[in-house]
Amino acid sequence: LGNVGRAFVRLLLAKRDQLRAQYGIEWRLTGVASRRMGWLANPEGLSPESLLRGEIPNEAQRCPDLKHWLSVAQPTALFEASSLARTSGEPAISHLRAALQHGAHAITANKGPVLYAYDDLQKLAEHAGRRFLFESTVMDGAPVFNLFRETLPLSSVRGFRGVLNSTTNIVLEEIERGADLRAAVEKAQALGIAETDPSDDLEGFDAAIKVAILVRVLMGCPLRLEEVEREGILGLEEEEIRRARAGGAPYKLVAEAHRVSEWVKASVRPCRVSESSPLAQARGTSSVVHFELEEFFGLTLVETNPGPEATAYGMLVDFIRAVSAC
Amino acid sequence: LGNVGRAFVRLLLAKRDQLRAQYGIEWRLTGVASRRMGWLANPEGLSPESLLRGEIPNEAQRCPDLKHWLSVAQPTALFEASSLARTSGEPAISHLRAALQHGAHAITANKGPVLYAYDDLQKLAEHAGRRFLFESTVMDGAPVFNLFRETLPLSSVRGFRGVLNSTTNIVLEEIERGADLRAAVEKAQALGIAETDPSDDLEGFDAAIKVAILVRVLMGCPLRLEEVEREGILGLEEEEIRRARAGGAPYKLVAEAHRVSEWVKASVRPCRVSESSPLAQARGTSSVVHFELEEFFGLTLVETNPGPEATAYGMLVDFIRAVSAC
Repeated sequence: LGNVGRAFVRLLLAKRDQLRAQYGIEWRLTGVASRRMGWLANPEGLSPESLLRGEIPNEAQRCPDLKHWLSVAQPTALFEASSLARTSGEPAISHLRAALQHGAHAITANKGPVLYAYDDLQKLAEHAGRRFLFESTVMDGAPVFNLFRETLPLSSVRGFRGVLNSTTNIVLEEIERGADLRAAVEKAQALGIAETDPSDDLEGFDAAIKVAILVRVLMGCPLRLEEVEREGILGLEEEEIRRARAGGAPYKLVAEAHRVSEWVKASVRPCRVSESSPLAQARGTSSVVHFELEEFFGLTLVETNPGPEATAYGMLVDFIRAVSAC
Repeated sequence: LGNVGRAFVRLLLAKRDQLRAQYGIEWRLTGVASRRMGWLANPEGLSPESLLRGEIPNEAQRCPDLKHWLSVAQPTALFEASSLARTSGEPAISHLRAALQHGAHAITANKGPVLYAYDDLQKLAEHAGRRFLFESTVMDGAPVFNLFRETLPLSSVRGFRGVLNSTTNIVLEEIERGADLRAAVEKAQALGIAETDPSDDLEGFDAAIKVAILVRVLMGCPLRLEEVEREGILGLEEEEIRRARAGGAPYKLVAEAHRVSEWVKASVRPCRVSESSPLAQARGTSSVVHFELEEFFGLTLVETNPGPEATAYGMLVDFIRAVSAC
């Protein structure tokens, strides 16, 4: 129950009537966990309003660990929104695995489990007759995985090219406007986009992880993070960034992947992008990805100005899909 | 079995193994119809290869009319791809209605039935436990209706703005390059984009019908075609078109709709579009639409360089959805 978890609970409350009316979905919150509060559960439900006020509800039972917590909470679905552990994906992977073993749907906004345990969690979910879903890991709530899974059957992705990291996008734009790197990063932090430690973004790890995930899920190729060629934006001179913008082809941190014979070649690096390129549509917090399909057509998707609830919306979409499935 | 129908049959043949392996779908073609051949059927199946060679298969039974044809063909799904009758939607509506009454899914690439009979056909389909689907009526095979229906639950469209007609797009680009209107239209016809009579495109009817359909299905508002303000490209001077391009903001035939209190205001008209606008991504046969959602984010979808099979692919997607549904 951090920032994303709280946004998700607020969204569940705001959409309660619509969930019931349009999908026949009733819900109660039978467990929450955070570093601060530990593991809280009650099979009859915990007051979401109390939790959002930062209070520990009276009805909450404190559980010693994940396993005990699951056995008290008896969840139909578990929502994982812990922060990314870049080198292991833990403890998110353990949370999701335990949930699936318990018979709950496993929904995550965390890229780690998809990067490090996609096959494992997917198999576990199939075996349990449950879903492992992660729509909000790339482009927040905009449909990327669902786009292919639900609307483009029998299509095959030959490659993609996109701008998938908001922090670097905002930092580059601030530098173009005259800020130095430090002030630019502070601006991105003030907007709630950059982490306290922004190095995962600036060094291209965040975008590279997204590339690896997209390649794994949409192109069927188990690319490791180390196999994504990666160059962040820290090697660019500020003056170079401003000159590129003035020349009509600003720098963007471009993430791409393309099939090369039986494998996929993938990279994240700063590239100059002309104003008429689809990638130039990535302004501010907007992100864009262009997919080349094997036949029929190419498809570009732009998510513009995502609101603070966009990630939570992606989790809500996964929730509806998981519990409405036949 | 005109151009689109033949492309669809070729696609069914090309994807036969994948349909079986991935979706458990087996098919046979039990009926076809065209102005030239009349109504042909055989419940055991007609040879698609013979039909694609332009032959009438030996096994074909000639039927006197639609009703008889349906009773012999016993279809699980009917695919309607007759040409648009702009003022009535007939005879496509009658074909689809009869199919649904017969217990078949009704799939169309024809905008007329959605424009003139959406509510009626939708109700009929629900009542029969079948689907009425029409993904390829807007942006060929790119998912527009499925995008919202399948991947954006509980979202609400506040408005949209797009370039949805390829003929006018190509004609404007040809004029920018120095052609006169007549040569530009001939180019679009040579590309297989414009009809022999291109007036529905040039006068904005095609785009206006798409707007009305999107407003009806995605915004829930039963807008009539006459209520879409409509101005085609014939009022633009050739020199004006070239000057606009030279000035960095070329003309596009822009289709848009926006909620205004309880109703929707919609229009199709030539607008100058800056190179940095998402609408500028509509080049050649590519089309684009930007949706403003009520919350969360905006979403732009660009279909780039659709192949000749793109419309047929939309029908294939509808077919898979209809027969895989639980």
